[in-house]
Amino acid sequence: MALIVHKYGGTSVGSAERIKKVAQRVKSARDKGNRVVVVVSAMGHTTDELIALAKQVTDNPSDRELDMLLSTGEVVSITLLAMALRSLGAEAISLTGGQAGIMTDTAHRRASIIAFEPARIHRELECGKIVIVAGFQGITEDLDITTLGRGGSDTTAVALAAGLKADLCEIYTDVDGVLTADPRLVPGARQLRDISFEEMLELAQQGARVMHPRAVELGAVYNMPIMVRCSFNGRPGTLIHGGELVERKNKVRGIAHDLDVAKITVQGVPDRPGVASRLFTPLAEAGVNVSTIVQNAGVEGLADVSFTVSRQDLSKALGITGPVAHDLGARKVVSGDNVGKVSIVGSGIENVPGHAATMFRALAEHGINIEMITTSQIRITCVVEREQVARAVAALHSTFELDKLD
Amino acid sequence: MALIVHKYGGTSVGSAERIKKVAQRVKSARDKGNRVVVVVSAMGHTTDELIALAKQVTDNPSDRELDMLLSTGEVVSITLLAMALRSLGAEAISLTGGQAGIMTDTAHRRASIIAFEPARIHRELECGKIVIVAGFQGITEDLDITTLGRGGSDTTAVALAAGLKADLCEIYTDVDGVLTADPRLVPGARQLRDISFEEMLELAQQGARVMHPRAVELGAVYNMPIMVRCSFNGRPGTLIHGGELVERKNKVRGIAHDLDVAKITVQGVPDRPGVASRLFTPLAEAGVNVSTIVQNAGVEGLADVSFTVSRQDLSKALGITGPVAHDLGARKVVSGDNVGKVSIVGSGIENVPGHAATMFRALAEHGINIEMITTSQIRITCVVEREQVARAVAALHSTFELDKLD
Repeated sequence: MALIVHKYGGTSVGSAERIKKVAQRVKSARDKGNRVVVVVSAMGHTTDELIALAKQVTDNPSDRELDMLLSTGEVVSITLLAMALRSLGAEAISLTGGQAGIMTDTAHRRASIIAFEPARIHRELECGKIVIVAGFQGITEDLDITTLGRGGSDTTAVALAAGLKADLCEIYTDVDGVLTADPRLVPGARQLRDISFEEMLELAQQGARVMHPRAVELGAVYNMPIMVRCSFNGRPGTLIHGGELVERKNKVRGIAHDLDVAKITVQGVPDRPGVASRLFTPLAEAGVNVSTIVQNAGVEGLADVSFTVSRQDLSKALGITGPVAHDLGARKVVSGDNVGKVSIVGSGIENVPGHAATMFRALAEHGINIEMITTSQIRITCVVEREQVARAVAALHSTFELDKLD
Repeated sequence: MALIVHKYGGTSVGSAERIKKVAQRVKSARDKGNRVVVVVSAMGHTTDELIALAKQVTDNPSDRELDMLLSTGEVVSITLLAMALRSLGAEAISLTGGQAGIMTDTAHRRASIIAFEPARIHRELECGKIVIVAGFQGITEDLDITTLGRGGSDTTAVALAAGLKADLCEIYTDVDGVLTADPRLVPGARQLRDISFEEMLELAQQGARVMHPRAVELGAVYNMPIMVRCSFNGRPGTLIHGGELVERKNKVRGIAHDLDVAKITVQGVPDRPGVASRLFTPLAEAGVNVSTIVQNAGVEGLADVSFTVSRQDLSKALGITGPVAHDLGARKVVSGDNVGKVSIVGSGIENVPGHAATMFRALAEHGINIEMITTSQIRITCVVEREQVARAVAALHSTFELDKLD
């Protein structure tokens, strides 16, 4: 008898009607003889509404109180789903993060799971019940309620699946699975049957919204296969896994893009040890997430250091970088927020030097100038002008023949 | 430094604006040098809205799931109040029933508090924090969330006050305190400065809505003085306590009435042992709450047994009583739901036989027929026609001079 974890996002449980549909899907998984654990997000826009309610009371709510307030959103949806399942004749029980044994650190709003105590879930499963767990939340040693921050419900699902040694973790969402590119930019984007953890992680980090990198990473660490599929139809979805993908090795699997990018370049930095540390430590301390760093070879002992941040962090980042650059003796700091990133991702593409050349040529042929380049073992990312991102994605999708079946 | 428990009902915390007002009141109690614990109900109609949401999913929600769903209402209000207090510069922390150490049995929807573990509250108080606790809810040994049923938040407040050995428990509500009668029936109804637990218990059981009998009873058991006062003004309220009321002893203190009454009479029951048990055991087993029982002296070995139930329970009660009465050989069962109760309440009024005579004479002078009479040590209740209840209350209020200062 297989143990399966399902996860449903806020859109999938956005109304009483949708919750009843989810209940039917969960029940049919149960009726096939599986033991089923379900992780649920808050209904629709509940979280935003609760934040708006808090803002009516104070401009600056404490993180601890906000976590406790937000945690009610998932409690509402798990109890409704449990009720819907019972009305279909299926035994079901809802559990808060705390009741489900999800222990976290005390970092409110962005807690990390530090332990999982599965005793209660096992006990309920042994009674034949479907167990419904509130996503996005956990409990500290002191019984304080925490939330996991971005990607929280996906992370809950993968953590439970790993901790329960489930056979499969199914993430139900409002898209059919992982696509070769954003279908709004590339109408011919095709759904992938499967993808490796590493590839998915790169796609997610480079802007693909289908799953949060944090949950993918957890899946990779525990080698827990994750199926991403649509909650509104019965289609098979995309399997993210750690197995061999021999026949598709060394191929480009997907194009990711990210429009939430701003670029800062510190020009003419003296090329000596400690410069990077002096530049980036204060940014990290201020909570600015630096996502791409490029340093060119120094000319006459001077280097240019470029990095990207999210657009909303740009002015904060400039305020920090300016004085530091001055102290370092840099020539000047320039910035721009009219940029975006486009990436090709595929396991082992570093082994095929032709991929990089093909990418750069395709962009050049479409008149797209490359402002920065970074690579990993399985990814090549170019920073280009924002208004050229869509054209770049479409060009690369076609050049690497991603519209054809693999 | 005194320890005070405040309790605010749903109306008092019905909006963000009202929550801010409550925060100011709580803070001013704190600023006077008190340690303060606050118990809060769910905002306004939240509980009804959550029940309506559940009904969209199923006609028959499980009690366990409904408890967990309903518990979110109080979590929202405690976190908002904590935020409002912090924005006023007061250190505050919100605690769910479970976090506050309120342990209950597993009777969902109507749980009883079986233990209170005050360690967390004491710890937070010692840090100088105002502690805000979710009313109406607790937690079982298994960490399941329960609700306490009717009068739950008042009960939470009194239980916390008793368990923490507080100096005073203040129940903030939308009326000024305990009145001598319902002011909608008696415009001259006067607020009482104080009242004994026993008197308040009788008033509450006989229809006064200001506090639930369950919370009053708990106050009596632990001798915890309770101040009932209005959250919208600074007036002093009514103190419910167990001290001496010497100068007011043996006086009628208040008139209670109850319109939610139906009457059943089983006529011509053979007057032998076991009859009452045979009649009332099946009603109790069916969850029908029988509130007044009168059996007259038997004539020719036959007695009439009358009792009252709430109007909504009448048909259920008749369905149970009919066959039992038949088996007992009773002559017939008659019923009516056009009745109400009016009661005079005052400590030691049984010591003043004149009170009963005065009551009966006053009703007679106003043409009001008495259908049933019951008495306790501190109460005399008459069942009369429903449309005469208002007149009866006014007549008794005037006869016993309750409009005059005591």
